[in-house]
Amino acid sequence: MAILDYIADLNKRALTLLQEDANKIEKLIKVQMESLTNRRCPLYEEVLDTQIYGLSREIDFAIRVELITEDVGKQILTRLEFNLAELYEALEQSKKL
Amino acid sequence: MAILDYIADLNKRALTLLQEDANKIEKLIKVQMESLTNRRCPLYEEVLDTQIYGLSREIDFAIRVELITEDVGKQILTRLEFNLAELYEALEQSKKL
Repeated sequence: MAILDYIADLNKRALTLLQEDANKIEKLIKVQMESLTNRRCPLYEEVLDTQIYGLSREIDFAIRVELITEDVGKQILTRLEFNLAELYEALEQSKKL
Repeated sequence: MAILDYIADLNKRALTLLQEDANKIEKLIKVQMESLTNRRCPLYEEVLDTQIYGLSREIDFAIRVELITEDVGKQILTRLEFNLAELYEALEQSKKL
């Protein structure tokens, strides 16, 4: 295997793993969104924050070891944080009802 | 550069970064150990736990992307957890005095 193929393969593997981790958090957010009408689990926000912190450390490491670019790393986190902000917004709204 | 050199270089870089992160936590532990006689900062344990959790996620990612072996990853964490256990032990002792 040529070295460039190897690097491309490694970078792809790293990105796939990070995306998988991001997707897991995404699912947690969706589950909470869907159960808004039900009883709210107070530990949920804590769990999500911890998961996102963990992912941010993985992404930071991947950037430093040059497996992904800073831009790609930021995109993954920004997307998650956007979804999380939406969830918190929805939670606030549901409190007011 | 030959592909094996590249891989060796990348693996070394990954390990160096993880060791650096572990060393930072090590320093936090030492600082707390040295200030045992002083007023204890209650947020310290929380900060250390969070830092170690973050590092464990970095290490887990490095293992999955095959930059380090599971054994090496475990060694880094075990060492830190041993030092942390020592700190907690010392904190308990200082409470009793």
